[in-house]
Amino acid sequence: MKPLAGIVAPIPTCFDEAQDLALDRLAENLARWNRTGLSGFAVLGSSGEFVYLSQDEKKSVLEKAREAIPASKLMLAGTGCESTRKTVALTRWAGGMGADYAMVVTPSYYKRSMTSQALSKHFLTVAEASTIPIVLYNVPVFTGLNMPLAVVSELATHPNIAGIKDSHGDIEQLQDIYLSTPDDFAVLTGAGHLLLAALFAGARGGILGVANVAFDLCLGVVAAFERGDHVAARRLQARLIPVSRAVTSGFGIAGMKALLDRIGFYGGPVRAPQTPVSDEARERLECIYAASCPEALPAR
Amino acid sequence: MKPLAGIVAPIPTCFDEAQDLALDRLAENLARWNRTGLSGFAVLGSSGEFVYLSQDEKKSVLEKAREAIPASKLMLAGTGCESTRKTVALTRWAGGMGADYAMVVTPSYYKRSMTSQALSKHFLTVAEASTIPIVLYNVPVFTGLNMPLAVVSELATHPNIAGIKDSHGDIEQLQDIYLSTPDDFAVLTGAGHLLLAALFAGARGGILGVANVAFDLCLGVVAAFERGDHVAARRLQARLIPVSRAVTSGFGIAGMKALLDRIGFYGGPVRAPQTPVSDEARERLECIYAASCPEALPAR
Amino acid sequence: MKPLAGIVAPIPTCFDEAQDLALDRLAENLARWNRTGLSGFAVLGSSGEFVYLSQDEKKSVLEKAREAIPASKLMLAGTGCESTRKTVALTRWAGGMGADYAMVVTPSYYKRSMTSQALSKHFLTVAEASTIPIVLYNVPVFTGLNMPLAVVSELATHPNIAGIKDSHGDIEQLQDIYLSTPDDFAVLTGAGHLLLAALFAGARGGILGVANVAFDLCLGVVAAFERGDHVAARRLQARLIPVSRAVTSGFGIAGMKALLDRIGFYGGPVRAPQTPVSDEARERLECIYAASCPEALPAR
Amino acid sequence: MKPLAGIVAPIPTCFDEAQDLALDRLAENLARWNRTGLSGFAVLGSSGEFVYLSQDEKKSVLEKAREAIPASKLMLAGTGCESTRKTVALTRWAGGMGADYAMVVTPSYYKRSMTSQALSKHFLTVAEASTIPIVLYNVPVFTGLNMPLAVVSELATHPNIAGIKDSHGDIEQLQDIYLSTPDDFAVLTGAGHLLLAALFAGARGGILGVANVAFDLCLGVVAAFERGDHVAARRLQARLIPVSRAVTSGFGIAGMKALLDRIGFYGGPVRAPQTPVSDEARERLECIYAASCPEALPAR
Repeated sequence: MKPLAGIVAPIPTCFDEAQDLALDRLAENLARWNRTGLSGFAVLGSSGEFVYLSQDEKKSVLEKAREAIPASKLMLAGTGCESTRKTVALTRWAGGMGADYAMVVTPSYYKRSMTSQALSKHFLTVAEASTIPIVLYNVPVFTGLNMPLAVVSELATHPNIAGIKDSHGDIEQLQDIYLSTPDDFAVLTGAGHLLLAALFAGARGGILGVANVAFDLCLGVVAAFERGDHVAARRLQARLIPVSRAVTSGFGIAGMKALLDRIGFYGGPVRAPQTPVSDEARERLECIYAASCPEALPAR
Repeated sequence: MKPLAGIVAPIPTCFDEAQDLALDRLAENLARWNRTGLSGFAVLGSSGEFVYLSQDEKKSVLEKAREAIPASKLMLAGTGCESTRKTVALTRWAGGMGADYAMVVTPSYYKRSMTSQALSKHFLTVAEASTIPIVLYNVPVFTGLNMPLAVVSELATHPNIAGIKDSHGDIEQLQDIYLSTPDDFAVLTGAGHLLLAALFAGARGGILGVANVAFDLCLGVVAAFERGDHVAARRLQARLIPVSRAVTSGFGIAGMKALLDRIGFYGGPVRAPQTPVSDEARERLECIYAASCPEALPAR
Repeated sequence: MKPLAGIVAPIPTCFDEAQDLALDRLAENLARWNRTGLSGFAVLGSSGEFVYLSQDEKKSVLEKAREAIPASKLMLAGTGCESTRKTVALTRWAGGMGADYAMVVTPSYYKRSMTSQALSKHFLTVAEASTIPIVLYNVPVFTGLNMPLAVVSELATHPNIAGIKDSHGDIEQLQDIYLSTPDDFAVLTGAGHLLLAALFAGARGGILGVANVAFDLCLGVVAAFERGDHVAARRLQARLIPVSRAVTSGFGIAGMKALLDRIGFYGGPVRAPQTPVSDEARERLECIYAASCPEALPAR
Repeated sequence: MKPLAGIVAPIPTCFDEAQDLALDRLAENLARWNRTGLSGFAVLGSSGEFVYLSQDEKKSVLEKAREAIPASKLMLAGTGCESTRKTVALTRWAGGMGADYAMVVTPSYYKRSMTSQALSKHFLTVAEASTIPIVLYNVPVFTGLNMPLAVVSELATHPNIAGIKDSHGDIEQLQDIYLSTPDDFAVLTGAGHLLLAALFAGARGGILGVANVAFDLCLGVVAAFERGDHVAARRLQARLIPVSRAVTSGFGIAGMKALLDRIGFYGGPVRAPQTPVSDEARERLECIYAASCPEALPAR
């Protein structure tokens, strides 16, 4: 089993102008990312607009990604749905088609009913049914629900639950998860603007939206941290922060796609109700990116 | 067009023990509710566990409900999905199959991207495409997103947007919506424990989970309010509050279904990851219900 | 004992240009308010900037107000401090100097330590020590702490605790307080933009910052409500809302004082760190006020 | 000027059984803490129950502390009040009596009026008037107000504003403060359970309630961090966390005082409305402390 560590890119799903799937663009993007030091890819994460895809579309995306991702890199498949039954079905399918891990977001619509007991049972049911290991996915900024520490600690002991992507952005919580789970449970952050703080607090790496556009910078932070060069790590992290915010809280997925377009990948449109970024926003994005990753920006 | 007013029941979706659709049970339930003074039904609202159903299941439920709801009563179809394209498709389908209104929940996963502009455009696109009028559905307790007043005011002037179900539970907001929308825009509350306060603040009625089990009490509040008998209205509202809370914040949909089972309807199981209520919770529910609606509780 | 009902004005404390007390201005203001239908005055409430006054200043203000308030009108003295001992001392002093009621805000700095038990004990200690009845004062927007319903219900049965000023702005909570306290416990709202909703939900009146500037409008809402003319009541309430918001969430105490200056009272400066309103804000305030209370605005 | 760095203990104010000041106990406590490696002391911080003291009491406490703190250790005086004028007066007094720094909490009662402009002006006025440098004190858990980053960045350039105690517990914010302020601006954390994370993010040390009882552990974390031994630092931090939580969010100041009593200092009572801890809580506190600081616990 390939280890869950380093920097994983939660790749966007490519759409054409009619907002239909553009699978070839996805494959082309992956061909380029494959040449980086990224550990692998999370397909159909939040950056992948998974909530806008039908089950058939999800399968098409996963299949295309499977073809395009080499065996040397991780493939995580986002398989979480609101219902347990649908999550089980898609997770089993993803296991069958060759994903390395299934990344399962917390169900969240009925927040008050998603008690610790309900969440535990959901994830245990999925983990038992799955033929591949599960990565828990906690992302309160989107779900409006934060997985209780006790649930994570309990689930972390299950042999088929391999780790967590915690996108909360609360280092206290990440530290608590690290301290209350077994050593072989992989804690990964989803917050690029806190990558270094997360590494210090015990994370093994990150699944970071910003890694789609600033992979070298993310990898640089990890490398500097690992060789104990904290001065360099902090300097790189300081450069990573504005780009990370720009493609998450700042301009969202539309911003990330605009930046991909600018740096030679295929970004393309987002699906409605998401809206495209304005021309002014494109300029600001480019400006932020240029300041942090000057070497990665092609000349106009 | 039947007016959007009075008490509408957002009916639960019936499942069998395998958590598969139990459409005949749905029809039987409707046959009983048809004999009450309810104005009509919202099918596939939050109480209908719509987030757990596939598109095919949604259509089956709507078709069965259409057969079972008489022309004299309202049928609202819950057609909101995360993507605009899927919402448009289901809304158009619901118009074609004879629903009176489409109730469209706010898309909400990418909360930060759901700007006023994005929400406006989403609802306008759906309203333009729909052959039946739209009812906006704002339910922050589930979506984690509250529709800005300015968006509601703007949308309220569209000829194909007929009203709003506001489940926020904030009377200030409901008052603001009432005061800033045209007279023919129907403001309906989704908060049974605040039904009377909402009527005082300008609501025409409610789409209330509690109306599934305490329809006579809900109707009694409206009737007392309409005849100007505020003493009676407050007394009835005081009885309604504990039942309303029990089937929403207290015990959720599983609690509402347990109570339906107890009073002669079909409640049945909820879909996972929701969990069934405990025996102790059933007893407390019955106790609360008996205190508020003694006449409606069949002898054991 | 004069009943706790109707509209009470929580009067501002007057300062001169050096931000020192301007007690004569306070007396002059009261002389004018005495000619209105206001039930009385709350001295040293939040609108009175009590947190900026030393104990000696507080006593001077209360003494001056006592001279200026006729026996026919209520005088509530704001006596709440962070420590129980200081609250007891000031409350006893206020009783001795002739205030009708002591209005006691929740202590709030150590929010996590202000458990139900701690709050109960604090208010019971004060109520036992006081020679005049206590009015609880719950104002989460300033204290960051909301009094639990169970604490209010328990305290409401104490013979020397006469009522509550609930400024929360949550009608659900006000309704709950009304339904869970004895009939002789006075529920008063502190939220002018929700005055009518509060009356419908069981409040006897309000202690409203906006009553300092829009007393006739507040009184009109109560009168229309009491004679059962809900159409007129809603119309007046709709006019009250923008003024109420302007002098609270909109422009704060500095805004209220600016408006007082404009309508012939003494407003004067606020104490730092509060800041004066800009000229532009003065114009907007006047414009809002003119639209709602045209008859009360003196010609320039 | 002694540098703002290392571990500073925000000492509790000692009260006797009547809840009056027990200044000799304070001096005795300081005599013991002086023998540790603590950098110094913050007198009249939140752990010092400053909001319950009169101005005269505050001066008595500061004077007694000044006598008992040697020149080799820092003395920070908590001088923040709600009004700017009172804060200026106490800050100037503290400068005159020999405190090294004044620690000034954000005024917070009128939260909505505490705009960036108002906060800036308040702190600049105090800094201009003060004869000793100012340390900003941001503690949202108590004030309900979080200082905006832009205000901190601006104030950090003032020659008489030396640093910040940020007790927010949000490492992202601390990282932002560190990155947006000059190198000679001292960032100190107030969150003991995040001490190591704060050091990694750029803090020079902490002003930590937990340092009153677990000084050696706090000092150990800093020492291990400074010598680059992250394994040891994390191990010590893991031990610090439960004690830190126990004396803050867990059992509050009453808990901290109970623990001081147990380990040979004078803890004594808290002032009402705070309540003493139960016997059961004392046992749990001892148990938590024994697990983390076994060497510091005297035999019974």
